[in-house]
Formats: sequence, C-alpha cells, structure tokens
Amino acid sequence: MSERLTLSLDAMGGDHAPHMVIEGIQLARKRYPDVHYLLFGDERLITPLVPQELKDFVSVRHTDQVISGDDKPSQAVRTGRNSSMALAIKAVKEGEAAGVVSAGNTGALMAMAKLSLRTLPGIDRPAIATMIPTVRGESIMLDLGANTEVKANNLVEFAIMGEVFSRCLLGHVQPTIGLLNIGSEDLKGTDALREAHSILREHPLNMKFHGFVEGDDIGAGTVDVIVTDGFTGNVALKTAEGTAKLYTKFLKDAFGSSLLAKIGYLLAKGALAKVRQRTDPRRYNGAMLIGLNGICVKSHGGTDAVGFANAIGVAIDLIHNRLNDRIREECAHLAGELETPPPVASSSSAASG
Amino acid sequence: MSERLTLSLDAMGGDHAPHMVIEGIQLARKRYPDVHYLLFGDERLITPLVPQELKDFVSVRHTDQVISGDDKPSQAVRTGRNSSMALAIKAVKEGEAAGVVSAGNTGALMAMAKLSLRTLPGIDRPAIATMIPTVRGESIMLDLGANTEVKANNLVEFAIMGEVFSRCLLGHVQPTIGLLNIGSEDLKGTDALREAHSILREHPLNMKFHGFVEGDDIGAGTVDVIVTDGFTGNVALKTAEGTAKLYTKFLKDAFGSSLLAKIGYLLAKGALAKVRQRTDPRRYNGAMLIGLNGICVKSHGGTDAVGFANAIGVAIDLIHNRLNDRIREECAHLAGELETPPPVASSSSAASG
Repeated sequence: MSERLTLSLDAMGGDHAPHMVIEGIQLARKRYPDVHYLLFGDERLITPLVPQELKDFVSVRHTDQVISGDDKPSQAVRTGRNSSMALAIKAVKEGEAAGVVSAGNTGALMAMAKLSLRTLPGIDRPAIATMIPTVRGESIMLDLGANTEVKANNLVEFAIMGEVFSRCLLGHVQPTIGLLNIGSEDLKGTDALREAHSILREHPLNMKFHGFVEGDDIGAGTVDVIVTDGFTGNVALKTAEGTAKLYTKFLKDAFGSSLLAKIGYLLAKGALAKVRQRTDPRRYNGAMLIGLNGICVKSHGGTDAVGFANAIGVAIDLIHNRLNDRIREECAHLAGELETPPPVASSSSAASG
Repeated sequence: MSERLTLSLDAMGGDHAPHMVIEGIQLARKRYPDVHYLLFGDERLITPLVPQELKDFVSVRHTDQVISGDDKPSQAVRTGRNSSMALAIKAVKEGEAAGVVSAGNTGALMAMAKLSLRTLPGIDRPAIATMIPTVRGESIMLDLGANTEVKANNLVEFAIMGEVFSRCLLGHVQPTIGLLNIGSEDLKGTDALREAHSILREHPLNMKFHGFVEGDDIGAGTVDVIVTDGFTGNVALKTAEGTAKLYTKFLKDAFGSSLLAKIGYLLAKGALAKVRQRTDPRRYNGAMLIGLNGICVKSHGGTDAVGFANAIGVAIDLIHNRLNDRIREECAHLAGELETPPPVASSSSAASG
C-alpha cells in the first residue's frame, strides 16, 4: 500500500480527552509510523498539546460542539451535526479518512455512524464486537449492546461478521462459532436462538459452527467467536470485568494478610505483572462497530493513552486487512448461495471428502 | 423448636451420588446434630454406605427409578413419578419433611416441584436464587434459569422473594435491590425491565430499590439482591465462574514461570488458600427454588460431600428462618397495599422521619 493511511479521531470523546488522544497517537506511531490523523475538536485545547514531532502527522479541524456522555443517541443525531464525533464520522463517509476512532458516548456513536455511513449490503443491524482474553488465547464476542433484542437473522449476521473479524484481527484460519445460551441442548433458550442455531447448523459459507455455548465457555475459549444479543453480551462482558476486579481484590487482601505473604508477593511480583498484563482492560480496548459501511472503533471512555493507542491499532489492523470488503464478499456469497438451489449430492460429496 | 426437623434427600441425584449424599450428611451433622433425613433411592446402594453413627438419623426409602441429567423436564414429569427425586419432593408435599435437597437435573426438579408443591399465593413464577461472593461480602441473585423470558410482574415478584431470601439467609436488615440492565439510565433495556423499574421505584413494602445495575455491579456488591430474568442470570453466573477459572489459570501460569515466583508462591501459599476459600464454588452451593410452597434446594450436580453439606445447610437455614411464611406475609401485605388507597401525606410523613 503506497498511499498514506488517514484516520479520523474524535479528539473530544472520553474522560481524559483531548490529551490522552494526542499521547495515544504518539504511542501508536511506534507501531504505525506512516499514519496521518485528522483530529476533530476544540483547536484551542488540542493544538498546544501537539508536540513538534507530530505536527506533520496531525491536522486539527476545529469545532466547538461536543457530544457528552449523558446525551441520548436520538438527541445526538438531531442536534450534534457539528460535534467532533459527527465530523470525525463524516470524514470517513466522504473518503477523507479510512476509519474513525472515538472514546465518546457509545450509543451516540452507533446512531450517528449508522445514519451517516449506513450498513453494509446484506447486514440489517450493525453490532459491537470486541476481543476478550480466554484460557486458549483470545476470542471475539458480539453484540455487546447495540441491539437489545434480536431476531434469528441478526444473530446469523453477527456470526458472519464475527467470523470475518476473527480472521482479520486474530488471524484465525477457520474460527469456530458458538451461540451463547443457557444450555447446550437444542431445545434451550429463546425462539431466535433456536432458529439461528438451525440456520447455522447447515454451515453456510463452510463456517465452523460449534453449536450452543454457555457463560463459562467464554473464559474457557471453547469457541473463537461468541455470538449473542446486545443485552446478554453487555451483561456477560461487564460481569467478567467485575469478577476480575473481585478476584484482584481478594488477591490483594491475601498478599497483605501476613508478613510471609508480603515477602511472597515481592518475590512473585515480576511474574504477577504478567497476569495483570494478560487481563489489562487497556489491552482489549477498541470495540468495533461492525457492519457499517466504514471502519468505526469505539475506545473505552475512561481509557488512557495506552488504551487509546490500542484502539487506533485495532482500526488500522481492520483497514489493512480489508475487514469490510471481506464481510461484503461473505454476504454476497451467502446471498448467492441462498438464491441458487443446492448442488446435487454426487457433485457436492467431492467437496466434503 | 422442640420438634425434630426432617429433610428429604434425593439420594440418587448428582455425579457422585449416593456416597457424597451420605458423606454430606455426616459433615452437616456437626452443625445440625438433630436433623433427621429421609433418603430416597436404591437401598442396595445406599444402606451399605450408612455408617453406624448415622443409623438413628437416616431412613432409607427404596425406589429403583432415577431421573437422569439428560431427561427433559416434561419427560421427567410424565414418567418419573416413582423416581427418587419425585418421591423426595412428595415427602415435603405430604408434610413428612420440611424441605428437600437434590443434586439432580435442575429442569426436572423445578418442573416436578412446581407441579407437586405448587407456587406460593401471590407468586406467578418460581425462580432459582443463589448467593454469590462480592467485594462487600455476599449477595443474592435470581432468576438463574427457571424463566427464560419474563414480564415486569415476574421481576417484581423476584425482587420481593430475593429481598426476603437475603434477610433470611444473609441476615441483611434492609437489603438493597437492583435490576440487572445494560446501563443505569431509565431508558435502557427491555420493556419488562423499564416497567418493573417504574413499579419498584415506588418502593412497595418499604423495599430499598437501588435502580438499574450493570454486570460489573454484581462482583462489586453494589446491591444485596440482583434481580434478572433466568436467561441473563444464568449467563452472568456462568460467565463469572468462567472468569474466575481463567484468572486462576493465569495465576498458576505466573507462579510456575520462574524460580523466584515459585518460592514466592510457597511463602504466600497459606494466604492464597484464603482466596481459594473465598471463591470456592462449594461454599456457594445450594441454589434455592424460590416461590414454591415448600423449601426446595438444588445442589450443583458435580459437587462433593462438602458442597452437598452446604446445600443441606441452606435448606435448614431457610426452614429455621421461615422463608416461605415471610414471602407469604410480604405478598399478602403487597396485595393489601395495592388494594388500599395510599395513606394521606401527613400521616405517612411520620414514618419517613
């Protein structure tokens, strides 16, 4: 790729904006030295923060308007047309930038991005996807809150998008897919889940469908892609975060409970730092708004420069690996496959051998 | 209470039945020396396992039939009338026992108990409730899988039952209640959640309603009672279990990663045992099937004698603390309150001062 990649950033979104945005760019530059950034926000706040060595890689576009964390998505769409968030999205729509990153209000970002970028052909509802740590490495989970209630076809679309996301971002050659349920038997769960299960069981696009998985399969890494509705996914992700915090608290109490334990902690400190690193939420920062006609990454609102740099990295990886082109292709194949009658048994048996 | 308390046990339910049932009784006897047990199951397997010192406290009632883990609830109800599980429940219905404990198939237990014991007056749908460890101590969560989809009134009933359960089992004087959602704003979530929120906001029965809580509030112990539908509750509980396992795996890797870390582990071993104890699933064994006209406790199927003894302890605590009488009273008060017009402002203000 000879052309320089440009990302647009909502420089005002997030608790520690705009300085963590600028510091995040500085960190990201070590991995991606050639990327150019369009920063949308208050230039009086942003420009003084941009260090000399970044000047050639950053363009600041001024706007006074900011979407706050309390703004309702509908309100943001109606009145936030000149906000840093809206303008950063618009830069992607107009082809100025290859993708957008924001640490602002998730609901507003999804609503504005959906309205401005539209969904990819074949995708009815975009979803929020993220990576999560597991015993086996890393998995992808979606949806995490964009769709409180879903139909079977939405879950099937999430499976397709999650599969492509897993290949693009984690390099899994043939990721396994699981539908999150409350039991592994075919009869458990909601109608939408059972219907999606029977569609996915036919393995469209040679997808490796594992079947239903349960809550404890998330941490166990039973599958590479966990598909669920936005309500359940959001609760599951936050429950996992809360449990990790609880465990950390218990450990801290234990290491402080005796002199021997304190010495033990000092000796194991270096090794324990690895645990912290493996579960560091900043490492998993950068949720993808997937299914939109443009790369759109949401950083955690409370993140620091390290987390924001990771969100930038996610956006760049998805652009380089042409995530959206590949989702488009899968959807086109699927549409083609569903329109064409299935091949006769004799010709299809060769493929399965 | 001068009369001796009798519990009925499904001696054939669970992966390690019947021996973990007998060993569980032996452990439970240290805390509850006077309880008598009716054991339902294959006497050829059970009787040889009963040690001399238990003979006076145990009566074995023979049956050949066992409900397996794979049996569907509807099938269990239709064909399992003489199973160890059904007969153990029947002993409660007929007043022979004050409560039943089973480590068998949860769906079958709920279906058979509901049909046999019926629900308490004022309760439309029973729920499954359990204790969970939090940063602040312990909380109660329900429903955990009995009701995949719920209406607002079901959630309100869960809140009432969970509140009484929390007072009876954990001794919380005025437990706080939270509705599990994907955001704390009033507009988030499903219709059922918003409607339940608006009913509970009026604080029926002086209930301390906190409002919506999110997944990370579970581990944080933000509220004493977490109310949710059975689908979400089941996923959240299992996700927390899976995350704890993941964390334990990461820790184990870290402590084994260097000589220094290994020595550190040996020094901190005693203190770390406390963490294991605090998160030991056996300690939280004993899910209550709440809302039934009889005490019915479900032990984890894979549990050992320690876990089964804890499930017995949960049943005895709930019987001693008259859980069902108190739920009945609350429902009667609530029904009375909803029929009577609210008191005038001048007389009610005294109570709030």
